Amino acid sequence: MPTRILELFVCFALFAAPLATRTIDLPREPESEPSADEAAIRSVLLNQESSWNQGDVDRFMEGYWKSADLTFAGIGGVNRGWEDVRARYRKRYPDRKAMGKLDFSGLEIRALGPDSALVLGRWHLQREAGEIGGVFTLVFQRFSEGWRIVHDHTSLVAATQR
Amino acid sequence: MPTRILELFVCFALFAAPLATRTIDLPREPESEPSADEAAIRSVLLNQESSWNQGDVDRFMEGYWKSADLTFAGIGGVNRGWEDVRARYRKRYPDRKAMGKLDFSGLEIRALGPDSALVLGRWHLQREAGEIGGVFTLVFQRFSEGWRIVHDHTSLVAATQR
Repeated sequence: MPTRILELFVCFALFAAPLATRTIDLPREPESEPSADEAAIRSVLLNQESSWNQGDVDRFMEGYWKSADLTFAGIGGVNRGWEDVRARYRKRYPDRKAMGKLDFSGLEIRALGPDSALVLGRWHLQREAGEIGGVFTLVFQRFSEGWRIVHDHTSLVAATQR
Repeated sequence: MPTRILELFVCFALFAAPLATRTIDLPREPESEPSADEAAIRSVLLNQESSWNQGDVDRFMEGYWKSADLTFAGIGGVNRGWEDVRARYRKRYPDRKAMGKLDFSGLEIRALGPDSALVLGRWHLQREAGEIGGVFTLVFQRFSEGWRIVHDHTSLVAATQR
């Protein structure tokens, strides 16, 4: 009988425990210790911020899933596909003067499963033409190359309500 | 030996197979057969639509996670908590005339894991004061009571861009 119990334990360790570990790796409570996944997601966003502030839209775009299924919702409706999202950024922010200085703040990262996460945050753009800002909702998924934004919903918010 | 193999098979069936089944139950391709989860999510949204059109904000609110951690992002920034989200709806749409007739369309449901999903769609409100509409991003999570919206990001979109 002990052998049977040992076998059952080995089976549990093989099949069930690794899955449990992956869940534990992603804390649902924002006040808990940041996980490796949370750090990786923050790093994607920090890279986007610094790329933008160096006028490098292509490097900024590396944070997005390079797929025809990437979606971007905002004041202009829904854009679909990595190429379209890049074209929209290039059209709306044609040069460094238009791009200004980008700041993300108030990031809140919530796990939605072992390979997906929801990120809320605020964006702020300081430009000669005046400042603008608002809120964003990002859905991240884990790929072999790392965490990427698969959906972005960005809104402008009036300065008085930010 | 056959007994050992049988035991291993039973262990696999107990621990690993149910998890695999839950993943298969949620298709990633929107063109595949709708799953039971997709149907359940659609049903939450249909209930919201009909509740709104009957002037029943409380029943409309049943689609949302009844938690202080519910978030709603939009033109007014981020609202937090089920009570605040309800208060916002009541303030912005105080009576049936202000509520008008709500239509959701273009629903796109993507699984993000066994217990979470991303829903994109368009909303349209026909009112005496004029029509308004836009796009929304919803994140759903599965609870013991069913699928509920844990985050809503809703934007107004100009009629020409819808």
